[in-house]
Amino acid sequence: MAEDKLPTQNDNFAEWYNQLVQKAELADYAPVRGCMVVRPYGWALWENITSWLDKEFKATDHVNAAFPTLIPMSFFEKEKEHVEGFSPELAVVTHGGGEKLEEPLVVRPTSETIIGYMYSKWVKSWRDLPILIVQWGSVLRWELRTKLFLRTAEFYWHEGHTAHATPKEAKDEMYLILNIYERFCREELAIPVIQGTKSDSERFAGAQITTAIEAMMWDKRALQSGTSHYFGQNFAKAFDIQYLDQSNTLQYCETTSWAISSRIIGALIMVHGDDQGLKLPPKIAPIQVVLVPIYKNEEQKAQVMEVANKVFTELKTTGIRIKMDDREEVTPGFKYNDWEMRGVPLRIEVGPKDVEKGSVALARRDVLGRDGKSFVSQDGLAATVTDMLETIQASMLEKATQFRDANIHDPKDYEELKEVVKEGWAFSWWDGSKECEAKVKEDAKATTRVIPFDQPSSEGKCIVCGNKADKKVYFARAY
Amino acid sequence: MAEDKLPTQNDNFAEWYNQLVQKAELADYAPVRGCMVVRPYGWALWENITSWLDKEFKATDHVNAAFPTLIPMSFFEKEKEHVEGFSPELAVVTHGGGEKLEEPLVVRPTSETIIGYMYSKWVKSWRDLPILIVQWGSVLRWELRTKLFLRTAEFYWHEGHTAHATPKEAKDEMYLILNIYERFCREELAIPVIQGTKSDSERFAGAQITTAIEAMMWDKRALQSGTSHYFGQNFAKAFDIQYLDQSNTLQYCETTSWAISSRIIGALIMVHGDDQGLKLPPKIAPIQVVLVPIYKNEEQKAQVMEVANKVFTELKTTGIRIKMDDREEVTPGFKYNDWEMRGVPLRIEVGPKDVEKGSVALARRDVLGRDGKSFVSQDGLAATVTDMLETIQASMLEKATQFRDANIHDPKDYEELKEVVKEGWAFSWWDGSKECEAKVKEDAKATTRVIPFDQPSSEGKCIVCGNKADKKVYFARAY
Repeated sequence: MAEDKLPTQNDNFAEWYNQLVQKAELADYAPVRGCMVVRPYGWALWENITSWLDKEFKATDHVNAAFPTLIPMSFFEKEKEHVEGFSPELAVVTHGGGEKLEEPLVVRPTSETIIGYMYSKWVKSWRDLPILIVQWGSVLRWELRTKLFLRTAEFYWHEGHTAHATPKEAKDEMYLILNIYERFCREELAIPVIQGTKSDSERFAGAQITTAIEAMMWDKRALQSGTSHYFGQNFAKAFDIQYLDQSNTLQYCETTSWAISSRIIGALIMVHGDDQGLKLPPKIAPIQVVLVPIYKNEEQKAQVMEVANKVFTELKTTGIRIKMDDREEVTPGFKYNDWEMRGVPLRIEVGPKDVEKGSVALARRDVLGRDGKSFVSQDGLAATVTDMLETIQASMLEKATQFRDANIHDPKDYEELKEVVKEGWAFSWWDGSKECEAKVKEDAKATTRVIPFDQPSSEGKCIVCGNKADKKVYFARAY
Repeated sequence: MAEDKLPTQNDNFAEWYNQLVQKAELADYAPVRGCMVVRPYGWALWENITSWLDKEFKATDHVNAAFPTLIPMSFFEKEKEHVEGFSPELAVVTHGGGEKLEEPLVVRPTSETIIGYMYSKWVKSWRDLPILIVQWGSVLRWELRTKLFLRTAEFYWHEGHTAHATPKEAKDEMYLILNIYERFCREELAIPVIQGTKSDSERFAGAQITTAIEAMMWDKRALQSGTSHYFGQNFAKAFDIQYLDQSNTLQYCETTSWAISSRIIGALIMVHGDDQGLKLPPKIAPIQVVLVPIYKNEEQKAQVMEVANKVFTELKTTGIRIKMDDREEVTPGFKYNDWEMRGVPLRIEVGPKDVEKGSVALARRDVLGRDGKSFVSQDGLAATVTDMLETIQASMLEKATQFRDANIHDPKDYEELKEVVKEGWAFSWWDGSKECEAKVKEDAKATTRVIPFDQPSSEGKCIVCGNKADKKVYFARAY
């Protein structure tokens, strides 16, 4: 129920976010430190996300499987960087069935190790390659500061784990997935992301290359929205994943892993939301259209409900995800606010005048007030609504892209860089050194986000130290 | 690869099962005691199971959500029977992020407690009821003896948890779900199950009524294949789930929970399988049809592959889950055995003679040899194959039903009961006493399975003690 008003985004963006997630019933805090409960509305959103990705993975020859939630502690010690990266975040099972375990088990923070172990059993020959497996589920990384969706100890995701014969095949896989992620964000979530490679210091623990997509939030901070890693033979050597090649020589596999998590829901909220609440892109919205009948007496009710029911059935049959809000105990105005807060892209109002005129009123969530309102015929309404949803989807992407591009700066010197990252991203030359990266982090709280694949053909000078630089990178404050 | 022959079912049913699960690549043992890895073929089967059930739950107004994997230990202590039932099976997290936890967390063995806790926060008024939430995921119950799918520490399932205003509504929900389960087994899995109520000693820990479906395996043992529980107010009182009713009085909710787990895959294997391997019902089979091209030289290959490709495309377009096996390194005979072992319901063979005659050969998995083979025209093949798959589905259900009915006995006295449960089920009068139930368990290793809803109108005498009995019950040895 939307009785209490949200803080405005300008007043307190963090509070706006926290309250919105709960008021919109996307998620709630769990009685377990650092954990969340994803409520039905939030889970329906997640299901729309997962089902698009699942279809796309299957269309590119990936298959799903399930590996244990618990992993022997010793598995983490087999890859040096991996154990260093994950040790501080582990939840450890020490007792089972009333007895102390000989070896502690870890609630998986990620599954490279146990999947690597199984691949070493399954892979014998080049004929067994590639293996392209995806696991859907949750993982746990101990976190004390919780922010629903963005940072929780347990979160939901898919993790792809693939094994290949050659470096080229493994790298192609990494890029294939990153492209799927980019397209998913752009086409489905209306979030324009920037693809690129992570710096050495931002790489995944154990990876040789980490690629990622980065999105700009309303407060202009960056959010890493998906990652795709190339491990070379690191994990294959740690777990002995070997195959006989066509000339009968034993070779190590090349592996990758990649993921998008429920964090992406945080991005969706923070890219599109406004002071009224959520604003969900039609393609991914659990409810695309809410239908509100308006009447003042029983006679009007009978007439209005007849039209409303007809409209509801017609749109539902077309495959539009529509909800009728026929609650009696609240006013239409309350309903408008409520569904705007929950981000439903389009509202249809049917009142006594509409019954008379054969019309309905449409109200766009992405354009509030008069500008977003139109009166259309009941005839051909399914087509009108379908078009309108497409228009909304496209318009949301356009708006987010303009916002992003307007807030990426090209500072002329280091002083200006320190200023612009307070209110945007900087796209600047960088010599690739850890020292300059660390200095920006220290001075301006901004980190390198990605080194984009498309680079200027020229060379430049590192914005921090002035040395020769052959790459430009995005610097930004990040979630 | 199907090089090694399975033991026959008669020789060693347990070994037949173990080897088959691994050879068919449904699942594998994990390097974590008691746990399994569900491989892509097994997971595809599970996805077909879950997607049918998920659709059915959504069609009956249920919604999905996600609750934490870890549950505070103290939650289990709030419902007395519940903690007694689950304590011995818990895996306990004692350390997180490098520190000892103040309160240990338990890897969920089932989620009544944490879901009950959240319901107590969410439910305020009768308007909030019913809550009909399903969670898909895995749970963990410490097990030392592992049998893939049938008994593993971690297993996959859905758990439905609902809260209602009245006992009638909660009981209706329990029966609604049990009926969905029964229909699912019958229509999709071709497994005829018997529905009924569990005896007090077989009830779920904390439930007032447990209903279940029971299936008969090839070795005539029973397998509990799904359960639906009515808790009354037990959990509502333990977790304070209260609502204001229409006269503004505070009332406790009535709750239910219900589940089918990945165990059902064990049932599928043990009901339908034979010495050749799996036999999957078409509706649930990941691959419904395998297409094997047969040729001896390049010229034949070109002709055969042209027809095979055409057939493949036509059937795939119709929505049939078809796989082309065009491996060059193995013989057609090897392929036949391989796909029979994996339980694919129908095989299509295309050879040079078929090219000539415009025909293909169909070979049914459920009727091996000549009787199951037919030669049909390439014209209208999609319709022919669709019909054939329906025939196979119906025939598998009929066979399983006949087998079950032929092995349910009505022993005339206790001596005979002890004999018949060695090779079947007994359907007998029982006075409902724990003592008689325990005696049968002691003497004949058989337990009460369910008290079916349909009972004779007459009364009888308890087969154990001879006292008056008003109910008949199934006694059987069970998994």
